Amino acid sequence: MIIMDNIRKIEARIKALRALMLKNRIDAYLITGTDPHLSEYTPDEWKTREWISGFTGSYGKVLVTSDKVLLWTDTRYFIQATEELDGTGIILMKERIPGAVSMEEWIISNMKAGNTVVTDGLTISAADADNITSKLAAKGITFNPDTDLVGEIWEDRPASHNSMLYEHPIRFAGKSRPEKIGLVRKALLSNKSEATVISLLDEIAWIFNLRGEEILYTPLFKAYGYINQDSVWLFVDSGRLTAADLGKLQKDGIKVQPYDSFLSFLCRITDKKILIDPVRTHSSAINHISTSNKLEYAVSVITQIKAVKDQAEIKRIKSAHLKDGVAMVCALHHILETKGKQKLTEVEVGQIFHKYRSKQPLFMGDSFHPIVGFGSHGAIVHYHANEQTDRSIEGNNLLLIDSGGQYLDGTTDITRTIAYGAPTKKQKTDFSTCLKGHIALAKAIFPAGTKGYSLDPLSRKPLWDKGINYGHGTGHGIGYFLSVHEGPMSIRTEFNNEPIREGHLISNEPGIYRDGEYGVRIENVILCKKHSSTYFGQYLCFETISFCPIDRKLITKGLLSDEEIKWVNDYHGKVLSKIGPLISDKSVLKWLVKQCAPL
Amino acid sequence: MIIMDNIRKIEARIKALRALMLKNRIDAYLITGTDPHLSEYTPDEWKTREWISGFTGSYGKVLVTSDKVLLWTDTRYFIQATEELDGTGIILMKERIPGAVSMEEWIISNMKAGNTVVTDGLTISAADADNITSKLAAKGITFNPDTDLVGEIWEDRPASHNSMLYEHPIRFAGKSRPEKIGLVRKALLSNKSEATVISLLDEIAWIFNLRGEEILYTPLFKAYGYINQDSVWLFVDSGRLTAADLGKLQKDGIKVQPYDSFLSFLCRITDKKILIDPVRTHSSAINHISTSNKLEYAVSVITQIKAVKDQAEIKRIKSAHLKDGVAMVCALHHILETKGKQKLTEVEVGQIFHKYRSKQPLFMGDSFHPIVGFGSHGAIVHYHANEQTDRSIEGNNLLLIDSGGQYLDGTTDITRTIAYGAPTKKQKTDFSTCLKGHIALAKAIFPAGTKGYSLDPLSRKPLWDKGINYGHGTGHGIGYFLSVHEGPMSIRTEFNNEPIREGHLISNEPGIYRDGEYGVRIENVILCKKHSSTYFGQYLCFETISFCPIDRKLITKGLLSDEEIKWVNDYHGKVLSKIGPLISDKSVLKWLVKQCAPL
Repeated sequence: MIIMDNIRKIEARIKALRALMLKNRIDAYLITGTDPHLSEYTPDEWKTREWISGFTGSYGKVLVTSDKVLLWTDTRYFIQATEELDGTGIILMKERIPGAVSMEEWIISNMKAGNTVVTDGLTISAADADNITSKLAAKGITFNPDTDLVGEIWEDRPASHNSMLYEHPIRFAGKSRPEKIGLVRKALLSNKSEATVISLLDEIAWIFNLRGEEILYTPLFKAYGYINQDSVWLFVDSGRLTAADLGKLQKDGIKVQPYDSFLSFLCRITDKKILIDPVRTHSSAINHISTSNKLEYAVSVITQIKAVKDQAEIKRIKSAHLKDGVAMVCALHHILETKGKQKLTEVEVGQIFHKYRSKQPLFMGDSFHPIVGFGSHGAIVHYHANEQTDRSIEGNNLLLIDSGGQYLDGTTDITRTIAYGAPTKKQKTDFSTCLKGHIALAKAIFPAGTKGYSLDPLSRKPLWDKGINYGHGTGHGIGYFLSVHEGPMSIRTEFNNEPIREGHLISNEPGIYRDGEYGVRIENVILCKKHSSTYFGQYLCFETISFCPIDRKLITKGLLSDEEIKWVNDYHGKVLSKIGPLISDKSVLKWLVKQCAPL
Repeated sequence: MIIMDNIRKIEARIKALRALMLKNRIDAYLITGTDPHLSEYTPDEWKTREWISGFTGSYGKVLVTSDKVLLWTDTRYFIQATEELDGTGIILMKERIPGAVSMEEWIISNMKAGNTVVTDGLTISAADADNITSKLAAKGITFNPDTDLVGEIWEDRPASHNSMLYEHPIRFAGKSRPEKIGLVRKALLSNKSEATVISLLDEIAWIFNLRGEEILYTPLFKAYGYINQDSVWLFVDSGRLTAADLGKLQKDGIKVQPYDSFLSFLCRITDKKILIDPVRTHSSAINHISTSNKLEYAVSVITQIKAVKDQAEIKRIKSAHLKDGVAMVCALHHILETKGKQKLTEVEVGQIFHKYRSKQPLFMGDSFHPIVGFGSHGAIVHYHANEQTDRSIEGNNLLLIDSGGQYLDGTTDITRTIAYGAPTKKQKTDFSTCLKGHIALAKAIFPAGTKGYSLDPLSRKPLWDKGINYGHGTGHGIGYFLSVHEGPMSIRTEFNNEPIREGHLISNEPGIYRDGEYGVRIENVILCKKHSSTYFGQYLCFETISFCPIDRKLITKGLLSDEEIKWVNDYHGKVLSKIGPLISDKSVLKWLVKQCAPL
């Protein structure tokens, strides 16, 4: 009944949107599903993709034409989208598979010259808008990122939740606002610019050492910023700051202006050389800057500086990962000990991990919705157990748990796949193969300047050797008490021109997924550091900073090389020596010792 | 004396060019060094880079300003360029190193708004011209690819050498002209185009099944082509064809027009959808096409079709590689047998390889200038021994020989590094490490759709593990009795969006170079083929089709894994079983048996 209701609601919304499209002579309307800060996790009032389609994944875009609704998403969400779109008539368009038809290709094949495609310019990056515009122009189709139709028809749109902001204390943040601003100004000058527009929320939170509570899993807050060589503006409603915090900002020379005044502020800037990151700035912002300014398109210097963690940050981040390791060990022990005594569901397992994390000092919340997938649910890469899908953990199968925490001293992200009951030979082979991929990246040594796409195949090689692959990236950047996914670098198959630099914090998470059977993923956080300086130049490597046992029951020792066995044993030795002393419960410690025994 | 003369000549040419620049109000003149077909090996009359600078490498560009001359080239040529530019005052600008300053960056930093940079539009691709134009426009500097100044001042410019053309007989070519044209027309339609302009010489030679003799090492001839859905034009002077060949072309519906009429022909095309490969078509061609036509920018379908060798081609190519293997074995035996009896120089070693190749049936010439580097010369990646540099092979060191042949049934490219005398431990370690990289690519298994940049790191990993790297690509495409370097795919660090496909013929050539000491490179040709079809999709692999022993004296067995040892033994087993029966000289066969003994 609930599902039928949802389908009727979606149908009514699509109908209302089509009526407005007809009135405005719009042939297709694009809903990107992001917000004016191009956020991965948007506040509820910006969940336009979910509102129009019912699809709750973190990535996807919806195109509504007069007779079709299509949703594009990637391999992570194929199973989830198929289920969530069931009955809505919305067509799932699969990305990142052989023969995939992109949205632009679909439009070119299915729409006519003279047609118009429209979206809300606040919800699309300038780069994406330019790209769509030029592709569609080849067929004489116009793309206008200038009209918000959803705002006109979304009747029960949630109100904006504006929490009070708080300082990320300097003892955690490491650098003061003036220090960070100084670094940004210097970087702007060396990029032939004077000023920059800031619209990514993690950039704002980082540079202003402020945090908020309005966005799930990420301590961000809605704001814009602008930095030039003389002044700094923060566009956030001043009522969200305590008088004390407002005073400190002003003392640091930061001008606080209302959030809504940002676009009109941009209109008034003249004769500046402004660095704009077209991937990280919405199309409307750029359209509000007058042509008297010179725009320098480049990767955001703030994103680049923020991604390179300094020694003070690294020290704190390592400490957060130790606490997280304690929580992981306690939660895994709890779950495995409960077997045969109490039946747990996937949702309950997620709650157990949350419970143990929340016992740790400086814990502020989960860093993303925990992914707890038992058996076939583990094959759904970004599975979210909910009332409808929740499953009891019983019988023999693999349990995949991908979770993380936000601490004042760091953000964590870790995946463990454990054998619940006796694993099959195939499960052990898959797990061991995935582990070989994980170890290959963990042990990688590479010349400075290497891009993530040159490291990604090292993880995949042991899988490719067996005709196996995974449809997601191997690694993403991780923020410092910020977003669990951050740029500019990545370790994935796709081209990304940003090198992996010393101080980058990245996930290492190869996986193997068998639809309808189970999923395997092993994820630790790795820190890029200096390896050596040789005749051929500077070499870098990684240090693994997540500490939690990797399930020995799932490792087929004969599939690992001597070097790989040594890596596992060394890693478990470190887990025991670092996490053991932090465990007070003797039965947990006893369990940990067993888990960390050499292979 | 000769060198001083050359320097004076270069100075005079630069002076004459600057006078003409002043007259034409040109602030900088770019000499790309290529020809109207963007050839790697240009005929003598197009060797403008060598004429202005004395630099003889196959890649580089020269910028002449009122007070500076700069030459950009890549890592392969740093040592050679340093030597050849010595005394000319020309500044070497190194590409592909950390901190490299590109030509565009140099111009932006050193020239002023309002300045004009000019080149000959016949000698720059449309893509390069667009790229330079937009980068310089950011500083208000104009780039005009519309003026040839070199033509006005090159007094003793060599005459164009127009050889008679000959057919590549259908028993070697495999497909007839109409068959190839049919494939191209079909590919054009599926690329939303009707027609295409052909200016790459290997595309023309392939599609028309014709070959010429005017370009060193490559059986190409100067011509243009144009294909639409109804007709085909070949722009070549008809006097270069025998009456019989001309008749056959006409019978195949091909209109033969004078070479010089190509640009005016382009001007007359109207209302067509033309596929243009901006990377493979010069800027002038595009500027001659009227705006009534619609240009579809894409990778040349001819280059794509040509790169995928069909079964008939593969059969012949494998046969050519066997003959080449025989020549290699005889030449290596000759050189090693001569040791202690007769002193050889690098030039003589090149001649020995040529001699044995020329004894093979269907041999037409070397496929490139042989690279024979003894000791420190081996570290110069594209070293060409000449009168000035030629060195005797004596004492103990490594001898690197990179050579190849043009046969009517295939083009070969192979590198062997051999120990001349007793190798050092370091030489053996480097050789074994390089061999590990070679084997990693030879044994690679990867999903269909994988790009070359994802395979390149597999070769580098064993080197990276020891803090070693090489500054060139791991693999390039190879033509079929055509260019020894062909696109569209490559296996290198740089982004290249073309996947490695079944039927692609590629080199596998990692190397290790120690300036002033020696160089190591091991190169075979590999053919991409189906590996398996799994739950995760289609998987591809490579088959090595070059057969010649890899010097066992240089292999430290302990550095190889069991799998790598097995690969070497299997490979040597195949060399012996395939090449052995083709060797008539008993002492050579005896030597080969020894070289192919299991490790």
